Amino acid sequence: MIHELYRPPLALLTDLYQLTMAYGYWKLGRAEQEAVFHLFFRKPPFAGGYAVAAGLGPALEYLQAFRFDESDIQYLATLTGNDGEPLFEVDFLSYLADLQLTVDVDAMPEGTVAFGQEPLLRVRGPILQCQLLETPLLNIINFQTLIATKASRISAAAAGEPVLEFGLRRAQGIDGALAASRAAYLGGCAATSNVLAGKLYGIPVKGTHAHSWVMSFDTEADSFEHYAEVMPNNCVFLVDTYDTLEGVRQAVEVGRKLRERGYEMVGIRLDSGDLAYLSIEARKILDEAGFPDAGIVASNDLDEQIIENLKSQGAQIAVWGVGTKLATAYDQPALGGVYKLGALRNSDGAWQPKVKLSEQAIKTSIPGTLQVRRYEDNDGLIGDMIYDETREIDDRGIIVDAKDPTRRKKIASQALATDLLTPAFRGGDVVAEAETLEVIRGRVRENLERLHPTIRRFMNPHEYPVGLEIGLHELRDEMVRQARQVQLEMVP
Amino acid sequence: MIHELYRPPLALLTDLYQLTMAYGYWKLGRAEQEAVFHLFFRKPPFAGGYAVAAGLGPALEYLQAFRFDESDIQYLATLTGNDGEPLFEVDFLSYLADLQLTVDVDAMPEGTVAFGQEPLLRVRGPILQCQLLETPLLNIINFQTLIATKASRISAAAAGEPVLEFGLRRAQGIDGALAASRAAYLGGCAATSNVLAGKLYGIPVKGTHAHSWVMSFDTEADSFEHYAEVMPNNCVFLVDTYDTLEGVRQAVEVGRKLRERGYEMVGIRLDSGDLAYLSIEARKILDEAGFPDAGIVASNDLDEQIIENLKSQGAQIAVWGVGTKLATAYDQPALGGVYKLGALRNSDGAWQPKVKLSEQAIKTSIPGTLQVRRYEDNDGLIGDMIYDETREIDDRGIIVDAKDPTRRKKIASQALATDLLTPAFRGGDVVAEAETLEVIRGRVRENLERLHPTIRRFMNPHEYPVGLEIGLHELRDEMVRQARQVQLEMVP
Repeated sequence: MIHELYRPPLALLTDLYQLTMAYGYWKLGRAEQEAVFHLFFRKPPFAGGYAVAAGLGPALEYLQAFRFDESDIQYLATLTGNDGEPLFEVDFLSYLADLQLTVDVDAMPEGTVAFGQEPLLRVRGPILQCQLLETPLLNIINFQTLIATKASRISAAAAGEPVLEFGLRRAQGIDGALAASRAAYLGGCAATSNVLAGKLYGIPVKGTHAHSWVMSFDTEADSFEHYAEVMPNNCVFLVDTYDTLEGVRQAVEVGRKLRERGYEMVGIRLDSGDLAYLSIEARKILDEAGFPDAGIVASNDLDEQIIENLKSQGAQIAVWGVGTKLATAYDQPALGGVYKLGALRNSDGAWQPKVKLSEQAIKTSIPGTLQVRRYEDNDGLIGDMIYDETREIDDRGIIVDAKDPTRRKKIASQALATDLLTPAFRGGDVVAEAETLEVIRGRVRENLERLHPTIRRFMNPHEYPVGLEIGLHELRDEMVRQARQVQLEMVP
Repeated sequence: MIHELYRPPLALLTDLYQLTMAYGYWKLGRAEQEAVFHLFFRKPPFAGGYAVAAGLGPALEYLQAFRFDESDIQYLATLTGNDGEPLFEVDFLSYLADLQLTVDVDAMPEGTVAFGQEPLLRVRGPILQCQLLETPLLNIINFQTLIATKASRISAAAAGEPVLEFGLRRAQGIDGALAASRAAYLGGCAATSNVLAGKLYGIPVKGTHAHSWVMSFDTEADSFEHYAEVMPNNCVFLVDTYDTLEGVRQAVEVGRKLRERGYEMVGIRLDSGDLAYLSIEARKILDEAGFPDAGIVASNDLDEQIIENLKSQGAQIAVWGVGTKLATAYDQPALGGVYKLGALRNSDGAWQPKVKLSEQAIKTSIPGTLQVRRYEDNDGLIGDMIYDETREIDDRGIIVDAKDPTRRKKIASQALATDLLTPAFRGGDVVAEAETLEVIRGRVRENLERLHPTIRRFMNPHEYPVGLEIGLHELRDEMVRQARQVQLEMVP
């Protein structure tokens, strides 16, 4: 999909420092040194209890088409340093021109429920390549995971009623809109207004008419009648251009005429005013007029909190149109995903784990070649263990909270265990099976159903147990102590 | 640029209801009826006093390449209504396949300072075409205006010191990042980290190395030395991987060796911790070591408020790296721009103004074929008058606030007056002269300089005078009264 939309190649879609570091590794003869990087977020977005991993499909398309073309190389040759001399040697640019990805990528399948500190994606291979891929992978995965999560929350609030994504006009750029439509559908939305997203991704599209249609006729009644005349099989009348409940009555009149012609009015749409009051009153008018099946579509700055609140007031809304708040993830418009070095392969072939310190425990990185093992039983998900694939798992079966090592949990040994990172890309080729959005939507539903409801709660959710395998915890702890010791010794 | 990046055509990048309305107009023989639509926002973003208009360039590229291709038509033919029958007749799809834009677009040049209620863009032509263009024009103009405005605010806070845009990894999709880089540069940023934005838009690119570079060596000193060895003309050392001030001392050591080789260290970068304290202490170390020209670059969740605050604390920061908060406009990630019908041409050839009512005065639309006239004198901008080009301007020279008609202002007749909407697109062709981003940046600077500082203030800014030409105000008032009267009469 990404290359139906974009002109490849997109290898320059990265931060300049990835290229200057790549140059450094190349110059030092370390370009092919093997490294492992992990892409993860620290906390679920929206102060929630989980995230829905998304974006792997587009990320794999990005990797598959990765290359520097001639114009990219020419552009890089124009860049200069503070002495006016070129930043990059010609031989390095030739290296880039010939570069073919050989990295291995393992990732959580899209639609998997994910938690803080867990790698959504692991990249292993030449450090130069790992570094160049950091920025585009973060861009793609961060945003789609953010929106899929938001969509799953809004869909949960709608409690089975369809949510339509209407965000194109306010989205952050063309792809901000398209990627949002894809991720919103994946996360649980039923359809989009964005026709190009419909075409590219096979998402159902919905839409009828706007206020401008009504205004372009002398009266509202005229506008509904003409709409019904030309498009009798797609009649949702927007009733709030002048007076909302009067608009509902006009819609009923036109609905009767439609019925005489053998068609049914699909419903009406409210786009302003007090949606609780208006939907209840509109429902009465529709029911009394013999249109119990005509649904009420509501839109106007909705999000999961407002939908939950409207439902608690008994609002009679059957379909929820959500735009800006969904497509831009308005209350938290970025997922703070990061991409950190976990290990480097030494010249003797051994993997050396790496840790980055921070004064905040949550920002101290996790060393190793990480994998996530999810434990579950018949009742649902139990907890996740982050462990190093290159080391034995300690048979104590204990996980330790990465932020607070006093919080520990024993994972029941009889639980079903699944490793979440699965092979996605091997030496230049996509190996993960392509999945339809329908399959991914199914995974989101299943995953969320197996999550305790208190973890899905919007307000102060219960924290799902995620921890480091105790051996990995002890290694990390020791590495942090050693690094801090070195710091102390350096103080003059 | 847009078509260097995207594969055209993008005519389906619109809401489905634009196509269903287009079908309705076509079916009713009204496809060619002339209409005027205005694109405007109601309030400047970020609770600020102004916005910087942006996005016209990409919008014109969109218009220029507008067409439905065969695969678009095939896709539209698959859409069905609630009876399972096609939504669109085959003849309508042929009409779309042959459609060439004939609309006229007038717009504020990019970089113009704009205010609430003022059309940034006016589209006049066949109603069917105007309607199809609503969504893509809103998408492009809303986002770029939002980011250009944010960038101008952040640049103002930096008070002449360069601001670097680092948002790619957290931006909303690929184009969310590229469009943000373009708009951020236009609004006042000095450079971007996004290499593809550098290539496509000619924006300067900046970058050196990340924490992962430092971690990939045994010691920080080693990492700096190796970096200096391979890239001596681009040395900004990231000093906070382990202990920040110790890192500064390491950088100084390497800076001395660089100097022996005839190069100068550009500076150091702080990416965590207390930036006020660390920059002041780092400045002392650099100065005492004989590096008064080595600048301190700071990053880490910066925005205009934090920059202003750091400056008030005497932080010694010379270059500001701003990512997420800029590229996603974090505190208000969408500009609420709208696109409203202003007038329709009747069968007798006369323009009929149109108004949409709302219970909120600010949401009642402005009828007519609107133009914005800006008055200024030697001291700067005085006020803006929104008037109807098809009507005489009343010689009272008074403007009336669109939200509160008791607020009026007489515009001095000796002031210099300029009409802001200028021809951009005529009957399928771009007529606005292509502008470089440098020219647009210059316009932003000039416009902002001519705006009173109290209007540029971040907190509770002074409101710039914008009003309806008094004759237009009276017409609108009368139309609203009449429409409400009709509503009253309709009550049974």
